[in-house]
Amino acid sequence: MSLTPLLSPRSIAVIGASDTKSRIGGVPVDLLKRAGFEKLYPINPKSETVQGLAAYKYIEDVPEVVDLVIVAVSAEGTLDQLERAHALGVPAALVYASGYAETNEVEGLARQEALVAFAERTGMRVAGPNAMGNANFTGQIFTTFGQAFQPGEPSGNTALLTQSGNMCATVFRMARRAGVTFSHVINTGNEANVDFSDYLDHLADDPDTNCAVCYIEELRDGPKFLAAAAKFRAAGKLLAVYKVGASEKGAEATRSHTAALAGDSAAYDAAFAKAGVARAGELSALADLAYLHTLGEHIGGSNCAILSISGAAGAILSDALSLAGAEVPNFPDEVQKALDAQIPGHSMVSNPVDLTGNIVNSNDFLSECIRLALQPDDIDVVLLYLPGYFLTQSLEQIEKAAATTNKALIVIDSYAQADQARLAAAGIGYFDDFDRAARAIAAYGKWKALGDTHVSATVTTASWPAFPANRTALSETEGKEALAAFGVPVVHDALVQTAADARKAAGEVGFPLVAKLVSPDVAHKTEHGLIRLSIKDADAAVEAFEQMMAKARSMNVQIDGVTLEPMLQGGVEILTGVTRDPVFGWMLTVGLGGIFTELMKDVQHRLLPVDATGAERMLRGLKGFKLLDGYRGAPKADVAAAARAIAALGNAVLAGSDQLREVEVNPLLVLPEGKGAVAVDALVLLTEAVPGKVEEAV
Amino acid sequence: MSLTPLLSPRSIAVIGASDTKSRIGGVPVDLLKRAGFEKLYPINPKSETVQGLAAYKYIEDVPEVVDLVIVAVSAEGTLDQLERAHALGVPAALVYASGYAETNEVEGLARQEALVAFAERTGMRVAGPNAMGNANFTGQIFTTFGQAFQPGEPSGNTALLTQSGNMCATVFRMARRAGVTFSHVINTGNEANVDFSDYLDHLADDPDTNCAVCYIEELRDGPKFLAAAAKFRAAGKLLAVYKVGASEKGAEATRSHTAALAGDSAAYDAAFAKAGVARAGELSALADLAYLHTLGEHIGGSNCAILSISGAAGAILSDALSLAGAEVPNFPDEVQKALDAQIPGHSMVSNPVDLTGNIVNSNDFLSECIRLALQPDDIDVVLLYLPGYFLTQSLEQIEKAAATTNKALIVIDSYAQADQARLAAAGIGYFDDFDRAARAIAAYGKWKALGDTHVSATVTTASWPAFPANRTALSETEGKEALAAFGVPVVHDALVQTAADARKAAGEVGFPLVAKLVSPDVAHKTEHGLIRLSIKDADAAVEAFEQMMAKARSMNVQIDGVTLEPMLQGGVEILTGVTRDPVFGWMLTVGLGGIFTELMKDVQHRLLPVDATGAERMLRGLKGFKLLDGYRGAPKADVAAAARAIAALGNAVLAGSDQLREVEVNPLLVLPEGKGAVAVDALVLLTEAVPGKVEEAV
Repeated sequence: MSLTPLLSPRSIAVIGASDTKSRIGGVPVDLLKRAGFEKLYPINPKSETVQGLAAYKYIEDVPEVVDLVIVAVSAEGTLDQLERAHALGVPAALVYASGYAETNEVEGLARQEALVAFAERTGMRVAGPNAMGNANFTGQIFTTFGQAFQPGEPSGNTALLTQSGNMCATVFRMARRAGVTFSHVINTGNEANVDFSDYLDHLADDPDTNCAVCYIEELRDGPKFLAAAAKFRAAGKLLAVYKVGASEKGAEATRSHTAALAGDSAAYDAAFAKAGVARAGELSALADLAYLHTLGEHIGGSNCAILSISGAAGAILSDALSLAGAEVPNFPDEVQKALDAQIPGHSMVSNPVDLTGNIVNSNDFLSECIRLALQPDDIDVVLLYLPGYFLTQSLEQIEKAAATTNKALIVIDSYAQADQARLAAAGIGYFDDFDRAARAIAAYGKWKALGDTHVSATVTTASWPAFPANRTALSETEGKEALAAFGVPVVHDALVQTAADARKAAGEVGFPLVAKLVSPDVAHKTEHGLIRLSIKDADAAVEAFEQMMAKARSMNVQIDGVTLEPMLQGGVEILTGVTRDPVFGWMLTVGLGGIFTELMKDVQHRLLPVDATGAERMLRGLKGFKLLDGYRGAPKADVAAAARAIAALGNAVLAGSDQLREVEVNPLLVLPEGKGAVAVDALVLLTEAVPGKVEEAV
Repeated sequence: MSLTPLLSPRSIAVIGASDTKSRIGGVPVDLLKRAGFEKLYPINPKSETVQGLAAYKYIEDVPEVVDLVIVAVSAEGTLDQLERAHALGVPAALVYASGYAETNEVEGLARQEALVAFAERTGMRVAGPNAMGNANFTGQIFTTFGQAFQPGEPSGNTALLTQSGNMCATVFRMARRAGVTFSHVINTGNEANVDFSDYLDHLADDPDTNCAVCYIEELRDGPKFLAAAAKFRAAGKLLAVYKVGASEKGAEATRSHTAALAGDSAAYDAAFAKAGVARAGELSALADLAYLHTLGEHIGGSNCAILSISGAAGAILSDALSLAGAEVPNFPDEVQKALDAQIPGHSMVSNPVDLTGNIVNSNDFLSECIRLALQPDDIDVVLLYLPGYFLTQSLEQIEKAAATTNKALIVIDSYAQADQARLAAAGIGYFDDFDRAARAIAAYGKWKALGDTHVSATVTTASWPAFPANRTALSETEGKEALAAFGVPVVHDALVQTAADARKAAGEVGFPLVAKLVSPDVAHKTEHGLIRLSIKDADAAVEAFEQMMAKARSMNVQIDGVTLEPMLQGGVEILTGVTRDPVFGWMLTVGLGGIFTELMKDVQHRLLPVDATGAERMLRGLKGFKLLDGYRGAPKADVAAAARAIAALGNAVLAGSDQLREVEVNPLLVLPEGKGAVAVDALVLLTEAVPGKVEEAV
């Protein structure tokens, strides 16, 4: 049901309205009154008037069915008020009270459950509880008890959506200082009924919002977030996110004060990448990204030209941009020559450009340098380092340059003396800090240059066999067979149960070969001596067979037999697996395996679905990719085949989603170019299928 | 010679003094006049007066021998003025003019050389050229043409030392905004005669300076910097450094506008670590570090307790501190229990602490929580997140708490509304940004907790043989022998020249063995097939001998024979080497070799000397250290022995400093614990010894 009655109500009743303007039940009355909101009905059984307005004893006394009730009473009394408002036909409510799931205590948890059940039963949209309320600047509708949002603030096109009331006020103030104006400011509270992604989805459709900046602690529903984010991308609206919990300590602190599922930090990263959101590395970057979006139509990417009156500042900006992931491309020769002709002496002209003190001597000098820096196609942004006096002196020239280009001009004044309003009026960007500027430009430009991030799931006609409910894992042979049906190339093996069969099969497989015990009960076989490599003849194969069977019998595990398979020579071993994140669903991991994955953490993650192009990007994103790319004279590995195999693995997992818990291929042996890649081993863990309860992040 | 006449002159002549206050020759006259500086002599051949002061036609007319001449004339006229001032006995000069080495043109380079020669001949201390001049706030002496530094600014104990005039003004303004006050502000310019480290050395002895914040592009003389930095450490004075050039692009931009040697970025990192400087990761952090040093006596380290009225802010600060390298240790149980008793409901009390809204209800609540948070010995700093109104309300309680503790209290107000002056008066720290606060606290606390960073060189009685001047490399056998003399354990080998000797020696060495061709002309033998592993018997040894000899003959290189040595089984291979940085001298590198070093960049660097304790820290600092520490059930490697071997290698290089270009041991095989570590191969490259020109970073 629509969030319009909640976020853009035409009429509001405040239950628990207070005559004292600073009290929780007084603030919204005061704000709405001052904003000239007309259909405002304070409810207070003990008072005839509230802040000069006629007060109503009970919600039932209000002469119309309001769009929204603000419930500013204690947690104990809230549900009763909601029931009564619902009985009247009120479609939306906002609950301020704390004392719900955020307490992590039995009573609070039960109270929240009751609230959830109420909302589900009635269809009423209930915001909060434990929410600070919202401010709709477009409509000048203030439903918050926060003091940071005041009538009369200019409205704009940025929405602020946070899971913390305090961060709402903090980011709002930061962004206002940069001149950003807002459409909506929303604090989600406990999200018992209306969750983060519901708001996001509403904002994606809101014509007054072209950008949302978000503070996120934990998402309840990953797929819903991805869907709302996709609407933002499709509409060309900026979605910028700061997610707390990047460190173990931060994650721990977050979990302990939210009542949400703890998703994996890597899964959040993968989800944000898939959603094409702009990431804020620190809180202040949210404000900076919203600010840059006000210049957004001019910023095509993060390739920067730097014109600086200080060689030092040029170098500092080059460092800051490079480290933040933006580029400072060298200018083409003709541009460098033209700049060299402009600038006296042999100054640096390749980019960054050292303008030298000459800037104060000539009127046209700067405009000509800007014109030249704007010329190359691969330049998205021209950064001008002109502090204090230098900026004042040349502002007119910059304004003229800005008027004649579609690219962005951004000024850095480290003396923090610029006339912000005048720069804003001319559409010229402004920062006073090198590193904040660089981080914001890099993140924003990267977002802007991002193509379509949508990947369609591959429809496959193959399917997984149905496994009995009591099975928790497949044998290696079963696992490889199942994956092979989905196009994952595997090393085929011969399964034998007797020494005689072992001898015969060994001859057929050829030497050297690998023998492995097959048992659904043993996951890590190497450690138990249940894998033998480099078996050179039939006698050795029989001996290995007998030893492993004896060992397995002593472990008292189910024994399906022993597989014999060719031992492949050469190639590079990689690891690929799919795990299920509680928030976002299936996440694919690719790495070089062993030490590289465990110690060097050199892995790439993506949410499914992933196609072969995406899988190849993951491989190429590994620090150790060179190992696949002809390291030290080795032949190049068949990266394309590996990517196809990885994508096929992902498709297989999606097709078996309701039966699978985790699938890992380790190693996937990537042979030299043209020779393919094969799954040498496969681990398939099953989950009990609970129909209807499985989520997919597709 | 002392820099006192330059930085604290009692009398000054300004050559090229201008009547116009804003001109380069007018600014210092204006500033000094307004500062009430008495012995000021403007020199101007065309004017009777300058800015109301009696002017002198020539320096010879000045009625006293001044301490300092400021030379504000063009580069062409400068040297003549210096000669004349020197003839009068003036001990110091400051040269504003550009047009020297910074142009990177023949004329400018020659001009700088002449200036250097003049200063060396006369002993005059000449600052600049291409310098903006200095401000001595303690003495209110302004020798700068920069407008950022004005008489009447309060003086303090921070010195600002930069290699860029513009960054001087920028950092000064940033730090002033935070309330930092200065003793000296110094811009070094081209450092033709007085270089960065000369200033640093002077400031180390300056009683009015307890902290120097520095902007560095390139250092000319690494050992001099290290010596000055050691004086800072010994005096307990903070030395904080921002070094530009962390990215390739930034380094390139820096090189192109300085005339200094390009040291390796890793060598700078190693030097700063050795010097025990506090690193500023971004320019603004210089201001923040200077600011924290004003609270410095209270900050013992970077272990933080967080008290926050917002759970979100607690989590954000935990993230920011952890990512910056600070700790947020869990409180002991008794402190958690006591906090739990204070805070209504089940709030988070382990650290961070969520104070909840209760803070507005009780007077003693916050002081009690602060008292508890200060209790654990491992807490250095208590961070209080109290924005806007919450801070105003509780400031008195915080002031009281600050008065009764020696630890630091730092307030974060993300609404940026705090009364900075009142907080400063109470010795309470203040930041308005989470991440800036965290970075600064982490860097400052780490600096403060740092022990003695001095390592003495080990005196060794061993020495290198004298090699003929035409040799550029030692054979592996020679290299290992030479290193063995310094205590580096090596695999001893048998050198043979005939097949018969090879057969005999192989029997003595034992099997399996490794055979290697010995030639000073082939550095990377594996690639040429000149190393054979796993030789299992005497016949194979002879065959390998003959094949390698034939191959070497076909390559037409000098052949010293073939070595046979035992092939050691087990152990972990690491790489260690020493290279010479043009600025800082000998730098030791330790890594796991091969892919880990080349692709994963998992290496540690230190400047020599390094003792065994330092070498072990390097090994433990590797991401891949677990490979040495019993990875996946392997035996632990003899890390202590490896550390001793690495330290011995460093000592060997220092002892042979004037003959060596580079030494590498790869691999150093680290055997299981108790079994030692041995150099399997050694590469020793020689340089032509030029006596007197070799620098050592000892």
